[in-house]
Amino acid sequence: MTTTARIAVLGASGYTGAETIRLALGHGGLELAYLTADRQAGKPLAAVFPHLTEAGLPNLVKIDDVPFDQVDAVFCCLPHGTTQEVIRGLPAHLKVVDLSADFRLRDPALYQQWYGHAHAAPALQEEAVYGLTELHRDAVRNARLVANPGCYPTSAQLPLVPLLAAQAIERDGIVIDAKSGVTGAGRSLREDLLFTEVSDGFHAYGIGNHRHLPEIEQGLTDAAGEAIHVRFTPHLLPMNRGILATTYVRLGSGVRVADLAQILGEAYAGEPFVALRNGGKAPATREVRGTNRCLISVHADRIEGCAILVSVIDNLVKGAAGQAVQNLNLMLGFEETTGLQATATFP
Amino acid sequence: MTTTARIAVLGASGYTGAETIRLALGHGGLELAYLTADRQAGKPLAAVFPHLTEAGLPNLVKIDDVPFDQVDAVFCCLPHGTTQEVIRGLPAHLKVVDLSADFRLRDPALYQQWYGHAHAAPALQEEAVYGLTELHRDAVRNARLVANPGCYPTSAQLPLVPLLAAQAIERDGIVIDAKSGVTGAGRSLREDLLFTEVSDGFHAYGIGNHRHLPEIEQGLTDAAGEAIHVRFTPHLLPMNRGILATTYVRLGSGVRVADLAQILGEAYAGEPFVALRNGGKAPATREVRGTNRCLISVHADRIEGCAILVSVIDNLVKGAAGQAVQNLNLMLGFEETTGLQATATFP
Amino acid sequence: MTTTARIAVLGASGYTGAETIRLALGHGGLELAYLTADRQAGKPLAAVFPHLTEAGLPNLVKIDDVPFDQVDAVFCCLPHGTTQEVIRGLPAHLKVVDLSADFRLRDPALYQQWYGHAHAAPALQEEAVYGLTELHRDAVRNARLVANPGCYPTSAQLPLVPLLAAQAIERDGIVIDAKSGVTGAGRSLREDLLFTEVSDGFHAYGIGNHRHLPEIEQGLTDAAGEAIHVRFTPHLLPMNRGILATTYVRLGSGVRVADLAQILGEAYAGEPFVALRNGGKAPATREVRGTNRCLISVHADRIEGCAILVSVIDNLVKGAAGQAVQNLNLMLGFEETTGLQATATFP
Amino acid sequence: MTTTARIAVLGASGYTGAETIRLALGHGGLELAYLTADRQAGKPLAAVFPHLTEAGLPNLVKIDDVPFDQVDAVFCCLPHGTTQEVIRGLPAHLKVVDLSADFRLRDPALYQQWYGHAHAAPALQEEAVYGLTELHRDAVRNARLVANPGCYPTSAQLPLVPLLAAQAIERDGIVIDAKSGVTGAGRSLREDLLFTEVSDGFHAYGIGNHRHLPEIEQGLTDAAGEAIHVRFTPHLLPMNRGILATTYVRLGSGVRVADLAQILGEAYAGEPFVALRNGGKAPATREVRGTNRCLISVHADRIEGCAILVSVIDNLVKGAAGQAVQNLNLMLGFEETTGLQATATFP
Repeated sequence: MTTTARIAVLGASGYTGAETIRLALGHGGLELAYLTADRQAGKPLAAVFPHLTEAGLPNLVKIDDVPFDQVDAVFCCLPHGTTQEVIRGLPAHLKVVDLSADFRLRDPALYQQWYGHAHAAPALQEEAVYGLTELHRDAVRNARLVANPGCYPTSAQLPLVPLLAAQAIERDGIVIDAKSGVTGAGRSLREDLLFTEVSDGFHAYGIGNHRHLPEIEQGLTDAAGEAIHVRFTPHLLPMNRGILATTYVRLGSGVRVADLAQILGEAYAGEPFVALRNGGKAPATREVRGTNRCLISVHADRIEGCAILVSVIDNLVKGAAGQAVQNLNLMLGFEETTGLQATATFP
Repeated sequence: MTTTARIAVLGASGYTGAETIRLALGHGGLELAYLTADRQAGKPLAAVFPHLTEAGLPNLVKIDDVPFDQVDAVFCCLPHGTTQEVIRGLPAHLKVVDLSADFRLRDPALYQQWYGHAHAAPALQEEAVYGLTELHRDAVRNARLVANPGCYPTSAQLPLVPLLAAQAIERDGIVIDAKSGVTGAGRSLREDLLFTEVSDGFHAYGIGNHRHLPEIEQGLTDAAGEAIHVRFTPHLLPMNRGILATTYVRLGSGVRVADLAQILGEAYAGEPFVALRNGGKAPATREVRGTNRCLISVHADRIEGCAILVSVIDNLVKGAAGQAVQNLNLMLGFEETTGLQATATFP
Repeated sequence: MTTTARIAVLGASGYTGAETIRLALGHGGLELAYLTADRQAGKPLAAVFPHLTEAGLPNLVKIDDVPFDQVDAVFCCLPHGTTQEVIRGLPAHLKVVDLSADFRLRDPALYQQWYGHAHAAPALQEEAVYGLTELHRDAVRNARLVANPGCYPTSAQLPLVPLLAAQAIERDGIVIDAKSGVTGAGRSLREDLLFTEVSDGFHAYGIGNHRHLPEIEQGLTDAAGEAIHVRFTPHLLPMNRGILATTYVRLGSGVRVADLAQILGEAYAGEPFVALRNGGKAPATREVRGTNRCLISVHADRIEGCAILVSVIDNLVKGAAGQAVQNLNLMLGFEETTGLQATATFP
Repeated sequence: MTTTARIAVLGASGYTGAETIRLALGHGGLELAYLTADRQAGKPLAAVFPHLTEAGLPNLVKIDDVPFDQVDAVFCCLPHGTTQEVIRGLPAHLKVVDLSADFRLRDPALYQQWYGHAHAAPALQEEAVYGLTELHRDAVRNARLVANPGCYPTSAQLPLVPLLAAQAIERDGIVIDAKSGVTGAGRSLREDLLFTEVSDGFHAYGIGNHRHLPEIEQGLTDAAGEAIHVRFTPHLLPMNRGILATTYVRLGSGVRVADLAQILGEAYAGEPFVALRNGGKAPATREVRGTNRCLISVHADRIEGCAILVSVIDNLVKGAAGQAVQNLNLMLGFEETTGLQATATFP
């Protein structure tokens, strides 16, 4: 087991970068050796994140100035699209967890269809392990490059994959109505992300064609063993953190609602970060704020043969930086939960 | 036409009461003669609503102390359950718009099933006209007692009724995923409505068995001409005003998505308060904040034969007090839009 | 009296522009003939403000394309600095209410000191009337160009000017601790105005040297008849609308706290938009949300000879567009309150 | 040094109780043996705090049912007033950190004046050590009963005490304008704490006579060596956590603003939880969210001889549960920072 690993965070000036740093600071076994932000290189981290002023971390540098031979692992928090070339250029000894979408889709044709251009590192794409940890733990443990899942896909797959694998629900007609806090959009200078444009209101976006759709369907298709197509609508909540997915399913023949709860309970028994909530009250996003947890509940619909699933995560933690640390823990031989055991901050 | 009607607001210390007062103050033809709040009787209105301190309105009184012979119409903003007996006791000359749920369900058995006790005024229940104005305008005009629709049912029925009536969508499998601001819960002293418990979080409630379900299904069943059962989940948004319903439908045989837009466009052509939004961007709740409007959009789902509808209202206006004023305007012979033409306050 | 005035809104794509449009739509005597936004010219207004989609307003145009000879009055909602040249170029027959800071400081040297460059239209600056309506009503009525006050200065001067004029408070040592909603910063693409950077937090800015300081002091100096210097700190609230100023004063010799209330009560007796709140409870910003009101309260401090004033406005209404309409009403001969009588939207 | 201490949390169903539990769970040396909530006794903790469902903690019990002989230390999170009698009844071997206001005022007459009744445990009041850790570290280390400071007093004293002790600022005329998140009001079922009443607005309360005033003045008087009276106004922010105090001071004779920064810098050099922020940008509450930190900045006012101090804390951590853990760490011989090293969760 590694006792201390030297880490670089590529793209340290965005929110997933900051969250990765926050978790690494409480980890005990990760040394934040290099933090990159090409346009802010040379500045102290506090210039982009004042809350880290006293953290004692190194100044921001350019990616090209990182001596990667002195680094054990990399969290790649760069924007989609630019990531492929950066990771292609990294030395082969590095463990890499990529938080972008660049390596999540196995099929290069699918990537091209949704992102509008050919993938720049198809060999790496083939090598990358999809890091939904609970579902791919062994592969992650042996991976060199992990494609960290998207936030919506994490919230959607965790409840659905065991049910599809067990053939407990119908494979068509699944509706995933998902709602996310604003940090999911990153630290982008967009008018529609201004406080004044987001607060005290709610809207849907990317209806029917959000880029997380193929990622969700890839995972569900794997689980079901045949092509799954879902109906998926993301919405923007006037709050910072949290995703809640309300998923409408129909029961398979002879299956009862209680069976769904049992399947999920068994699937995640012993899991440190995924829990089934029984008792009828659905979990709220505030119960996972700041944590690496996913909470799931199963509800009978009033209509015979129908059930409703609710799942919640913190999009920046289990939906991004937390799962990244969870994956790197496995890759480096740390205890999987190291640095991830915080209790939710409520209120 | 009435030039000025003398009005009593029964239950003036809650949010629908306050919103009714706000709209009446800007109406021009409504004199707020009596405001009741039994437990606060004798106090100035400012004791319960400081923002109305300078409005020049009468002190709060008990319902029993209202001289109803000097009143033309009543907005009844009392809690569900107590309303039946109050309205039963009112003189017959009064026009009444009831904002509670008490007279919304036509079938007494259905009422008993969902509310757990027999209806106390079944004759009135039979007389009451369901006040979803755009769909029942003529009946409202001639009504003495209008059952003002619930907020969720308003947001759900306006997009669905024309489509079901036109047989443009499948009648089963409709999913209505609805999200509401906190004012929808009223001014109740409940721990789960404290700022600290609601802010910066999101949750579902009443999953599969919310009391607005039978009201929604009653309207959809009327439209379809056969029993409709929908899947409906309400959620609580960390904001004050607004409901957004995301509705998943399947197209009827031979129907295209564009047909849905056309049907809705025709259904609401000329309507002052309902508009179809074309162009692909779904309306946000903030576009109707403080207004009596319902905005609707239609979206093709990626899956063939499926469409997604988005509808937004301000739950306190079109979902409560605004529609109540709209209905009373018709009942008293005012122009339907009187007092309701405010532009959304954005931001 | 004018029955209908044709209006141009210069800078219609920002928040003060939108608020001016909102108020004009409910005015009855203002026709929104031209809306400008140079970078968005040619687009429908809905492209920048979806909530105005159904308002039936003309497309955005460039300022240079406005036929000013067919316009009676102009609301100038342009950014500070650019405004001077635009207004200098307008035909002389136009009534102009300028919502920027460009004409608020009478002394060109003071302007240069705070804005870092010479004023481009010093003659106009001399002509401009400072439009704090309650204090300069007669001058406004006869003005051609009104410099509409800043939001902080409005909230600060309304309580202080009568007290200084009456010599009821000490002239030195006044502390104005002011807090503003985010709309006060305009619709600027700044990282520090993103939802994620503003929500769930609070901070001070411009400590000791905010540009509204000289404007505040100009008004207070006029009232006192000698130079007044105040201590002023602005803060950013995680909410959209509202300014609350907490002002710490010391009583003049022989003056009691009750005298302050009396002076303010008399100063604003009969005023439609300014009210003194007695009874010990300070007004909240939510009581003026969406309205043109300023509410003021006076409180005895525990320390002998000291008092605390609280004043609240909606920064977009009484602090910007509402006062602009109030001023134009006077300039055009409308009733002063026309279009401004809305009740606060609460909650 | 103690390796593991058995702890009881008295009053575990409120927010300071929950926050104490959260911090204790991440401490490593504190075993949460008993959690009390008299009215909820017998229920699982999840009944009052769903986010703690998976924490593996014992059910709630009555205080009378706690076997205090099996407990090493107590966090007392009970309401003001009831606490005195409870603590009076505890066995003498227990270390106690009281988070209520009951033991904060040394002078029984002062207590009676502000709380309206005689203190029920004056001997304990004499024994209690005021636990503003940085200022009373040695006394805390040897204390059996620590009166944990109030949230406002913590934010106010940390910047002011060193300056008064150094005679660097004038002793009269200090203005403390403080703003707090809603958790400061506790989990009280009060209408004015509903989401709908707090959100999207801002107000002052307890103007000139808040109960934290005598606590603040006690600490400042101690520091100055003579009676200090301050002007203090609390305000309620529409957010959960955080206090920001803006403090207006006048410099002592011959003192420059830079001297204030130097005094504070030296006073808190080496402190793990208090930091001076230089560079002109004042700290925001979001920089300390979830942490035990206090950040302070010093700003020159434009008026000669005047300065403005800004201080921020998380009211639930450094203003309550965090400081309580910090104190108990000292009392039990743990490293002072144990369990308190979290980085702020931003955004």
